[in-house]
Amino acid sequence: MGGRSDLEHLQPAIDILAELRIPHEVRIVSAHRTPDWMMEYASTAEGRGLSVIIAAAGGAAHLPGMVSSKTLLPVLGVPMPTTVLSGFDALLSIVQMPKGVPVGTQAIGKPGAANAALHAAAILSLKYPELRERLGAWRKARTDEVLAQREVAG
Amino acid sequence: MGGRSDLEHLQPAIDILAELRIPHEVRIVSAHRTPDWMMEYASTAEGRGLSVIIAAAGGAAHLPGMVSSKTLLPVLGVPMPTTVLSGFDALLSIVQMPKGVPVGTQAIGKPGAANAALHAAAILSLKYPELRERLGAWRKARTDEVLAQREVAG
Amino acid sequence: MGGRSDLEHLQPAIDILAELRIPHEVRIVSAHRTPDWMMEYASTAEGRGLSVIIAAAGGAAHLPGMVSSKTLLPVLGVPMPTTVLSGFDALLSIVQMPKGVPVGTQAIGKPGAANAALHAAAILSLKYPELRERLGAWRKARTDEVLAQREVAG
Amino acid sequence: MGGRSDLEHLQPAIDILAELRIPHEVRIVSAHRTPDWMMEYASTAEGRGLSVIIAAAGGAAHLPGMVSSKTLLPVLGVPMPTTVLSGFDALLSIVQMPKGVPVGTQAIGKPGAANAALHAAAILSLKYPELRERLGAWRKARTDEVLAQREVAG
Amino acid sequence: MGGRSDLEHLQPAIDILAELRIPHEVRIVSAHRTPDWMMEYASTAEGRGLSVIIAAAGGAAHLPGMVSSKTLLPVLGVPMPTTVLSGFDALLSIVQMPKGVPVGTQAIGKPGAANAALHAAAILSLKYPELRERLGAWRKARTDEVLAQREVAG
Amino acid sequence: MGGRSDLEHLQPAIDILAELRIPHEVRIVSAHRTPDWMMEYASTAEGRGLSVIIAAAGGAAHLPGMVSSKTLLPVLGVPMPTTVLSGFDALLSIVQMPKGVPVGTQAIGKPGAANAALHAAAILSLKYPELRERLGAWRKARTDEVLAQREVAG
Amino acid sequence: MGGRSDLEHLQPAIDILAELRIPHEVRIVSAHRTPDWMMEYASTAEGRGLSVIIAAAGGAAHLPGMVSSKTLLPVLGVPMPTTVLSGFDALLSIVQMPKGVPVGTQAIGKPGAANAALHAAAILSLKYPELRERLGAWRKARTDEVLAQREVAG
Amino acid sequence: MGGRSDLEHLQPAIDILAELRIPHEVRIVSAHRTPDWMMEYASTAEGRGLSVIIAAAGGAAHLPGMVSSKTLLPVLGVPMPTTVLSGFDALLSIVQMPKGVPVGTQAIGKPGAANAALHAAAILSLKYPELRERLGAWRKARTDEVLAQREVAG
Repeated sequence: MGGRSDLEHLQPAIDILAELRIPHEVRIVSAHRTPDWMMEYASTAEGRGLSVIIAAAGGAAHLPGMVSSKTLLPVLGVPMPTTVLSGFDALLSIVQMPKGVPVGTQAIGKPGAANAALHAAAILSLKYPELRERLGAWRKARTDEVLAQREVAG
Repeated sequence: MGGRSDLEHLQPAIDILAELRIPHEVRIVSAHRTPDWMMEYASTAEGRGLSVIIAAAGGAAHLPGMVSSKTLLPVLGVPMPTTVLSGFDALLSIVQMPKGVPVGTQAIGKPGAANAALHAAAILSLKYPELRERLGAWRKARTDEVLAQREVAG
Repeated sequence: MGGRSDLEHLQPAIDILAELRIPHEVRIVSAHRTPDWMMEYASTAEGRGLSVIIAAAGGAAHLPGMVSSKTLLPVLGVPMPTTVLSGFDALLSIVQMPKGVPVGTQAIGKPGAANAALHAAAILSLKYPELRERLGAWRKARTDEVLAQREVAG
Repeated sequence: MGGRSDLEHLQPAIDILAELRIPHEVRIVSAHRTPDWMMEYASTAEGRGLSVIIAAAGGAAHLPGMVSSKTLLPVLGVPMPTTVLSGFDALLSIVQMPKGVPVGTQAIGKPGAANAALHAAAILSLKYPELRERLGAWRKARTDEVLAQREVAG
Repeated sequence: MGGRSDLEHLQPAIDILAELRIPHEVRIVSAHRTPDWMMEYASTAEGRGLSVIIAAAGGAAHLPGMVSSKTLLPVLGVPMPTTVLSGFDALLSIVQMPKGVPVGTQAIGKPGAANAALHAAAILSLKYPELRERLGAWRKARTDEVLAQREVAG
Repeated sequence: MGGRSDLEHLQPAIDILAELRIPHEVRIVSAHRTPDWMMEYASTAEGRGLSVIIAAAGGAAHLPGMVSSKTLLPVLGVPMPTTVLSGFDALLSIVQMPKGVPVGTQAIGKPGAANAALHAAAILSLKYPELRERLGAWRKARTDEVLAQREVAG
Repeated sequence: MGGRSDLEHLQPAIDILAELRIPHEVRIVSAHRTPDWMMEYASTAEGRGLSVIIAAAGGAAHLPGMVSSKTLLPVLGVPMPTTVLSGFDALLSIVQMPKGVPVGTQAIGKPGAANAALHAAAILSLKYPELRERLGAWRKARTDEVLAQREVAG
Repeated sequence: MGGRSDLEHLQPAIDILAELRIPHEVRIVSAHRTPDWMMEYASTAEGRGLSVIIAAAGGAAHLPGMVSSKTLLPVLGVPMPTTVLSGFDALLSIVQMPKGVPVGTQAIGKPGAANAALHAAAILSLKYPELRERLGAWRKARTDEVLAQREVAG
């Protein structure tokens, strides 16, 4: 994530990764204030054994796209609603990448953070069948939750 | 894709998949006009051996999100600029998914189509090292292209 | 509605349906978390005797459009202001339906919920003259309310 | 419709009404240039035997809401893309109705015009079973069209 | 104004009219809930001796445009921030009038309400020189206020 | 107007002023390139016998607001669609004036230009009854035009 | 700045100028309420020894552009989030300047205010090497801050 | 600039730099396709004798912000209208920089390109008095152009 203020909105991603028992690390990497550390982080990620990178940033939100420019790993972007424009600026900054360097953009804020973790899980499930089971169970639990409360007294 | 009019904008995805020698199929699946076929397509995709689904749609653009609701595979969404709102409507319809069902959204139109193919390639590269080589070569060729023309007479 | 958090914004619809003595049921149906239940709900609605469906959803808001894809009944959509984009995302996701599958979209949030009930009443009034009387009385009472307070000391 | 320039965008509605053999009339009624005629048109519509009113307008687009204020009939609104804002202004002017006076808003331009006719057909089908058959057949034909072309050589 | 909830935002207009000693009346006139009363109000305004009409409304905000359609008097519109879209919907609904029926639109909310009163004063000053004096004094007092506080310790 | 490129969009104002026989002058006054000339133009307008000023500008569009800051005359603003943002930028720059200095903003482009002339005519009609007659006739002619073509073969 | 209400959002600029020991003055200059004082301030700024002008304004936000029209000094603009549109209106009013009169626009609100001071420091550093040192140190301190907290327990 | 397709929109900057006899170089530097070359370009710019950097980019438009993160030189950003969103995405991506790394953002497209050159000239004029003369003459010529054509036959 681009800064400590993003942590609140990114927490659902961390929680779901833990719930699905996907090993992960959480780092603050600012594209603008620490460009060298960002370049190093992104370019060494694959070698250090990372498989997917979730990058969250607000405002101009260059982190996801720049990380993707330095790695062949799949990069997921989560727009943070940390400016007066409610994350709308971050959404366009993250999603409108030019041809050649992709970012799999998720929804603004907490729902997007949760979904970044789930999208990462879907990606990793292609390789780790037991994770696929856990992901399937997680998804089914959400379905059951809705079904359990589907009747509302009108 | 949601309709034949999307083909023009989606072509870059097809071209890059071919270039990277990633086996693929191209289908028209309309969330609204063929909901049953969409549900069947999405729910049987994994069993038929698909690994990633790229879904392109314009306007209300429900296809990517609905496909994702019926599969554990990673789903990538490409907003199509096929209404008078230039794909802005499709972008919000695709990216603002609620917690639980992720779509990795790409840029509006052709750049996003190309990037969906590259994102799929990045995902598959986690499992297929030789694809990773081809993807790395593709990316390097783009870098070299820019470097070759970097000096412009001002 | 797509989730329990929508209930607060949808309540005016429920209240007006009760006030106009229109029999109704209130159900939570999530397009993304319970796609099968949604398909079943929509496709059996007419057979179960429903005449009009009001579907409320926020964010990507696929519920109204997908329900409409599975029924010939008139479907009314109410965008819920449940994301950081204040329902603007839901509005575009609901209203920009492609040719072939209509949704009668109402205003964002509570005013739209109230109007969905009134629009449903207008539709049913074509068949049930006594409901037309009640709807006319409801509308006239609103007019009288405004007229009663029209003079403000300036 | 609010003016002759809307006819081009509204034509799909007229075509579908004809195709479904729904008797209809087409009138130019300007909320701003002919407010008395609009009030008269709206308030006498029910007495003249109309069941549903489709109102199309661009820009400030007051026609659908004002017509709805003068009738208990269901009113459908179609935003016309006739200003430099591509119908975005008309969409907000039509859909953001206050509590009490509903308009069932459709998509901007031709898709919305087509859907207004289909929504009207859905409404009338509650009373006219044979129309329901024709509407079902129309919808099925669209589904078959997509299914027939679903395989695209990739 | 369209409803009592607009009063809070419209108050600056009433205050400035009083301050400039411009005789005025304040009325609630809803375009949608009391269309006949609105038509009557607008069409009789000139005969009753009104010179300028300030119309404030939120959401679909049809009041200013409809009033203007029924009078030759100058009509000023003030968008009210009373929906979740913060008055942006009302702004477009009021300002994007078609050729033929003008509304002099002011800023959203309180600044626009104040300016509607000042714009009305400017219009009336063409006929009433003593009002022009008061308006000039009011404007000069604002200038003096700023000049008095122009130095801020930095 | 702010520049010669605005003339095309402002022409309807000039035409209507001529049609209504309102004496007028047309000047290019750029707030940014000729600020002194603008200040002089605005501050001497009243003394030279002008009664209303119509100011048209695109992009940042400071002309109407700055002119209003230098005169007590009523100032009408017309946003010009001369940038890639289609006049949306000019609309916000013109209409969102702070408390104290009003601009009566019209629609973007040609419809707004026409309405600025009509709004000016409405203002002047308060003082010149014979102009009121011509304005009334102009408006009635528009009404008659619509009524003459109200029946469209559907 | 355009008014005292802007001070809260502009404070980061003042703080950073002080921190970098850049001599500065803080003035309230309203483009609309004190146009003469603004013209005088801008046109005498260079003669009084100013090198860079930071202009902050909300809403229609004409201050930065008008100041730039009256000086050859570099002018930086900071959009203030002081209307219901959250500074989006001020952003477009400040940044969309026509060819000929530039404003170096910064982000909306406090981040933009801070960056205006840093941009001014970068400009002055071209001439004052010791300021360049302080600016470099300030930037490095920000980098170190991020690096110090980069590891977050996930 | 980020790519050769930006050249058309950036040309006014190159023309004005030539006209003002400001030595300059024109380079294609892609933040995403050539991140290393971008980092190198930005970090060596000051040492190579550059004083100001103008960075133009479209879509996600990370170039200006990333260049600014690697240099203490003033960086000016020009949003390019090269996607379906007409440069609106690039504007937000460039201007909404977080506290610490400034970009002086100009208008979208050609007007912004011209103004970037003029803003650079204003910055350099602080150090080079003879450039200040040429800039003053350029600005005066624009003023004279407008004054020469200020009278339009209305």
